[in-house]
Amino acid sequence: MKLPLTWTLGHSPSPDAYPARMVPANVPGNANLDWGKAAGLPDWKFGTNFEQYRFMEDVFWLYEARIPPVELAEGESRYFVAEGIDYAYVILLDGVELGRHEGMFSRREFLLDGFVAENALRNDAKCTFSGGLEGSEKLLQIWISPPPKDPRAEKDSRAEAAQSAKPAVSYGWDWHPRLIPAGIWEAAYLEVHPRSYIKDISLTYTLNGDFSEALLDFRADIVGIGQTRLTLYDPDGPAVLIMTGDGSAVLKHPRLWWCLGYGKPELYRWEAVLCMDGNEVDKAAGRIGFRHLELTMNEGVWEEPMGVPVTRNAVPITLTLNGVPVFAKGTNWVNPEIFTGTITRDSYAPLLALAKKANFNILRCWGGAIVNKDSFFELCDELGIFVWQEFPLSCNNYYDSVPYLTVLEQEARAIINRLKKHPSLAIWCGGNELFNSWSRMTDQSAALRLLNKLCYELDPERPFLATSPLCGMAHGNYLFRYEDGREVYAAMPSLHHTAYTEFGVPSISNLDCCLMAADEADIFPMEINDVTVAHHAFGAWPDENGSAWARLETIRDYFGEPQTLPQLIEHSQWLQGEGYKCIYEEARRQKPYCSMALNWCYNEPWPTLANNSIVNYPAEPKASFSDVAAACRPALISARIPKFVWRGGEEFSVGLWLLNDGQDVIPAGVAVVSVELAGVSYPLAEWKYGAALANTNLEGPSVGMALPCLTGAGQRKLVLRIEAGELSSVYRLLYR
Amino acid sequence: MKLPLTWTLGHSPSPDAYPARMVPANVPGNANLDWGKAAGLPDWKFGTNFEQYRFMEDVFWLYEARIPPVELAEGESRYFVAEGIDYAYVILLDGVELGRHEGMFSRREFLLDGFVAENALRNDAKCTFSGGLEGSEKLLQIWISPPPKDPRAEKDSRAEAAQSAKPAVSYGWDWHPRLIPAGIWEAAYLEVHPRSYIKDISLTYTLNGDFSEALLDFRADIVGIGQTRLTLYDPDGPAVLIMTGDGSAVLKHPRLWWCLGYGKPELYRWEAVLCMDGNEVDKAAGRIGFRHLELTMNEGVWEEPMGVPVTRNAVPITLTLNGVPVFAKGTNWVNPEIFTGTITRDSYAPLLALAKKANFNILRCWGGAIVNKDSFFELCDELGIFVWQEFPLSCNNYYDSVPYLTVLEQEARAIINRLKKHPSLAIWCGGNELFNSWSRMTDQSAALRLLNKLCYELDPERPFLATSPLCGMAHGNYLFRYEDGREVYAAMPSLHHTAYTEFGVPSISNLDCCLMAADEADIFPMEINDVTVAHHAFGAWPDENGSAWARLETIRDYFGEPQTLPQLIEHSQWLQGEGYKCIYEEARRQKPYCSMALNWCYNEPWPTLANNSIVNYPAEPKASFSDVAAACRPALISARIPKFVWRGGEEFSVGLWLLNDGQDVIPAGVAVVSVELAGVSYPLAEWKYGAALANTNLEGPSVGMALPCLTGAGQRKLVLRIEAGELSSVYRLLYR
Repeated sequence: MKLPLTWTLGHSPSPDAYPARMVPANVPGNANLDWGKAAGLPDWKFGTNFEQYRFMEDVFWLYEARIPPVELAEGESRYFVAEGIDYAYVILLDGVELGRHEGMFSRREFLLDGFVAENALRNDAKCTFSGGLEGSEKLLQIWISPPPKDPRAEKDSRAEAAQSAKPAVSYGWDWHPRLIPAGIWEAAYLEVHPRSYIKDISLTYTLNGDFSEALLDFRADIVGIGQTRLTLYDPDGPAVLIMTGDGSAVLKHPRLWWCLGYGKPELYRWEAVLCMDGNEVDKAAGRIGFRHLELTMNEGVWEEPMGVPVTRNAVPITLTLNGVPVFAKGTNWVNPEIFTGTITRDSYAPLLALAKKANFNILRCWGGAIVNKDSFFELCDELGIFVWQEFPLSCNNYYDSVPYLTVLEQEARAIINRLKKHPSLAIWCGGNELFNSWSRMTDQSAALRLLNKLCYELDPERPFLATSPLCGMAHGNYLFRYEDGREVYAAMPSLHHTAYTEFGVPSISNLDCCLMAADEADIFPMEINDVTVAHHAFGAWPDENGSAWARLETIRDYFGEPQTLPQLIEHSQWLQGEGYKCIYEEARRQKPYCSMALNWCYNEPWPTLANNSIVNYPAEPKASFSDVAAACRPALISARIPKFVWRGGEEFSVGLWLLNDGQDVIPAGVAVVSVELAGVSYPLAEWKYGAALANTNLEGPSVGMALPCLTGAGQRKLVLRIEAGELSSVYRLLYR
Repeated sequence: MKLPLTWTLGHSPSPDAYPARMVPANVPGNANLDWGKAAGLPDWKFGTNFEQYRFMEDVFWLYEARIPPVELAEGESRYFVAEGIDYAYVILLDGVELGRHEGMFSRREFLLDGFVAENALRNDAKCTFSGGLEGSEKLLQIWISPPPKDPRAEKDSRAEAAQSAKPAVSYGWDWHPRLIPAGIWEAAYLEVHPRSYIKDISLTYTLNGDFSEALLDFRADIVGIGQTRLTLYDPDGPAVLIMTGDGSAVLKHPRLWWCLGYGKPELYRWEAVLCMDGNEVDKAAGRIGFRHLELTMNEGVWEEPMGVPVTRNAVPITLTLNGVPVFAKGTNWVNPEIFTGTITRDSYAPLLALAKKANFNILRCWGGAIVNKDSFFELCDELGIFVWQEFPLSCNNYYDSVPYLTVLEQEARAIINRLKKHPSLAIWCGGNELFNSWSRMTDQSAALRLLNKLCYELDPERPFLATSPLCGMAHGNYLFRYEDGREVYAAMPSLHHTAYTEFGVPSISNLDCCLMAADEADIFPMEINDVTVAHHAFGAWPDENGSAWARLETIRDYFGEPQTLPQLIEHSQWLQGEGYKCIYEEARRQKPYCSMALNWCYNEPWPTLANNSIVNYPAEPKASFSDVAAACRPALISARIPKFVWRGGEEFSVGLWLLNDGQDVIPAGVAVVSVELAGVSYPLAEWKYGAALANTNLEGPSVGMALPCLTGAGQRKLVLRIEAGELSSVYRLLYR
């Protein structure tokens, strides 16, 4: 029985000073937004308004709620439950400390009053309070400290997050303003437990070699006494198994959970009831998906010439699901909101529906961000989308210290135990870019050894990576045209990697998104100013053009000076769409040596003016989204294109491929290839392709023609069309 | 109080059939040798006699000892203690099972009779026996099963060791015959404990940042009751600290433990006494060395151009001791005996004394071999020689299975807890060449994740490597002249590695060793026959010449057909000595990017005819030993030499270096360089070198001369001499 509370909040420079003003608070939510609303601060998403929220990173927040009196029945006990408070806090009841905690990912229960069984006391996470409460209201107070800042770090840098389990992205990133949320970001409520109740249910399984049987193991963690019974229901509804009390049972012919593009994500439902003296006193329910997943070595790695030293050039990064090697097509997911307390199932649902539409079967949840709420994983389980989950370490040196390792262990245990039940959870990873020269963590870093140890202990069958990238894997590049002048068309075929776990092509945001961020006058003509810098069009990282994601010089070189904001957006997203198509399709051509392609990034937590994302805030696809979706279809005919700009008289030549990640044979057929220029279609070739086996690409011929010399000034679109029914593809290039 | 037992043994095809014959048995020892002696089998080291011992790998061994009656005082208890039995066994007392165990590295105690305190029963490793024993002798029997053989493995291959913690080398290696020891290989005895006694003492420490204070932590594991007092004595003898009961204390200005060449290996002694009612009832003693050791990233790695992907090219492999980066000069240590039960402190002592003489500061104890006995580590502590200790995995795929992982965890726990107190222990490592194409284990292998976890849990400050080699490190090559015709002089400078953790140059063994292995008639002229193949001159691994370590074709090319066995040995060891000098000195020139050079291998467990070792069985240095010792001096003047064979009229040119790993500045001086040919010395150059800072090399000039054209047929020795006092060096080359 969960009872909500009514909250107020205020801030103070010190927990010794009561706030000058208390205002209504949303729980779950963020203090920053509640205070901003009450104080009449302007929309933080617009212009440089977010700077008015900056002072909040130096205050102490006080949350208060009245605890109503309660009449407890014999053996009942009442708790205050906090599923997650961001970030370090002390809880007081009528001025007496109930407990304190550092870390936003741990669920904590605090006993308020009632029956204290030996079982309940065993749990370190509970603190008893000895004062009597019956008969009158009491005051619950939560003091939240300012966000952690490593004193060794440069002021206002992301390195301030380097001794905490606080997501580093809040401290500022090249697509995220510096805005550090605080508050009760997950549910918090009162809960009354009977004398006997279900504390936790563990239902795990092992599949046999041919996946024809699942050996189920059922353990109920019960407070008090009673008998538990678990019923398992198959995906269509009927009960298929009943287990009475802890123990094992065999499920014959389990319907397997598959990721998108490889089969159905079958989920079984279970219900557990706790009975005492023949009466049901508590119940619990959940889901389970049966699948066998391992990271296997990419095909060809062991055969590569090694010379001295004779060790492998790459780590295993092929997700092999129920015995089938998966080509992982997906993206890097970032927080859907900067103020993570406002994230709900409704924040996730439209973004995940789009991910399915993009034919993505994996999301990398990088270490700069939060570990998402339960509903994210529930939706991924249902959609068949794998999750690569990193711990909250990113781009810093999280150096060895006892206080840090203590918090990390406690938070990691909470994360692993919360998420390990999800069939969509594919990989644990220590964090983002930790073995890079700007982070300088290594295999010897205690934090990474600890995380590997905890994952092995609590969830031994799930693969663990120390970080991304590792040997053989690639992060980058993030441009359509690199600094050295090469286009992505030339660069990608020269790479030889097992997994492209980050790559980007930037674009200007959709018009609606741009206008959410700023007035048109501030952003067109697009120039460096406070607003365009704040929203990452410029200056997000240092380069010779002072530019970041707008890349105006590239757009100007291809298309000339943009005349309108919509035209600028159209050209920019054109490059982004074609660039992403090139990368995803080239990575797929490199299968099976390559087994993964994830663009940086999918979405964004606020309206940027330019970004590598393909979905604008909050969930608006860019034009390039449909290009990516096309490139990630299970099967298509793809062209390897040498460059973007073509001239009359030049030999236009492309290589044809049938890319098939599907589980079905693609029957033989004919692809009709043509070039369309100025409304005229020029036949290029017919490719009579043979049948393509399941999960296997076919390399086709190179086809070419001399391009006609069109008269008249200006540039035109050159459209390469491949007509082959559902396998058809279109590429939009430039002709001059 | 330890009481020895008198043992007999016999063998049987099954534990159901009592052996037809029982013979005297040595404990510690090996059943193979005891049986061989009793049965009159010939010396296993000679010729192919070892084949007559092969049948023993398929028998069950029975060890028997009579347990005398005992009068126990009030509260006393008596145990049978087995410090290590090789490999899987069941123990019976008068026919009743006392316990069973798989794994040779665990100490086990079995309660025989007497007081059973709750404390004693808590330990899973003890099994109580309910039968009354007082008043009459009883029979202790130990049945040892045949060595483990993974049923998936090819018969008679090393892969048979792939699901056990049995050292793989016994199953046959390119320098080790297939001979699999069995038996009670460590001490086994009766022990009577009083009611209260010391079970274990843990004395650990943390050094502060500038190593000026050690925070000591003292924990006594006591059975029964009593008060413990620990006294710490400094390396010169006086007591410096007394701790009463468990707790912490600060030792100011601890004298630090240093490895060879960097300082003194200071060892403190401690004594602990257990007192009850004012009486000392038990005591224990041990040693502790204070040092801070970490694996730091090699200088230059983070600065290397990375491109895409942006991860590091190498793992950290610089041993940084008390803040000083050490250049690790050493070797790969192998079992000093095939029959490991015969190894004693006296087996280790002469070999380790030689290692010190060779200026080695580290020994890599590879995963194919046993984990050495306590006296090995005690000697290394005293000598200041680091130990890189691998777990017993080598060159196989130790695949995930519950039975294997269970045994591995139990054995690894025993190994870690036994050895972690030694200051010489530098690195834990999962095993040998596990990420190589012939092993195909990966970062995801459960065995390696488990070992990382256990090391972090039980000994968190000690570095852990998954295997050797890892990224940046090199194993190989193992020849003076490679298969592609390049000499080691040309090959080594072209390599760029952080650590050369294996490299070899083979030679024919010393004459005494050869004659221990075979009659001269069987080995000279040296041809392929049963004996030369058995003792690894030929056929140890497949190559186009059918050859392995004799490399006769190389010797013939340089020196012509050998006329006598001593001449063959001399020429072969000449190449070995110069080859090793080249590699060690070149690795040192590559400092600080390179931080380690370990040749394969140091010693050998039986008389080979040819091997990469520099010490023959049992502890006889080859001629090349002194070359290696010279190359590993803390400081020397070294020449980078381009090739081995020179002709009259040719320009002879070498590059000069002052190599300094020492902790002192080398003052400026003059090195006089000359070439000696046919007894005549030709002055080459004088190098006036400046002062070399501590731990820093100096690159000098290249110096050269046109070689004189000597008349007369035949080849001559060309000696390059560098005279510079203690820094002098000599290189012996060929002139034609």
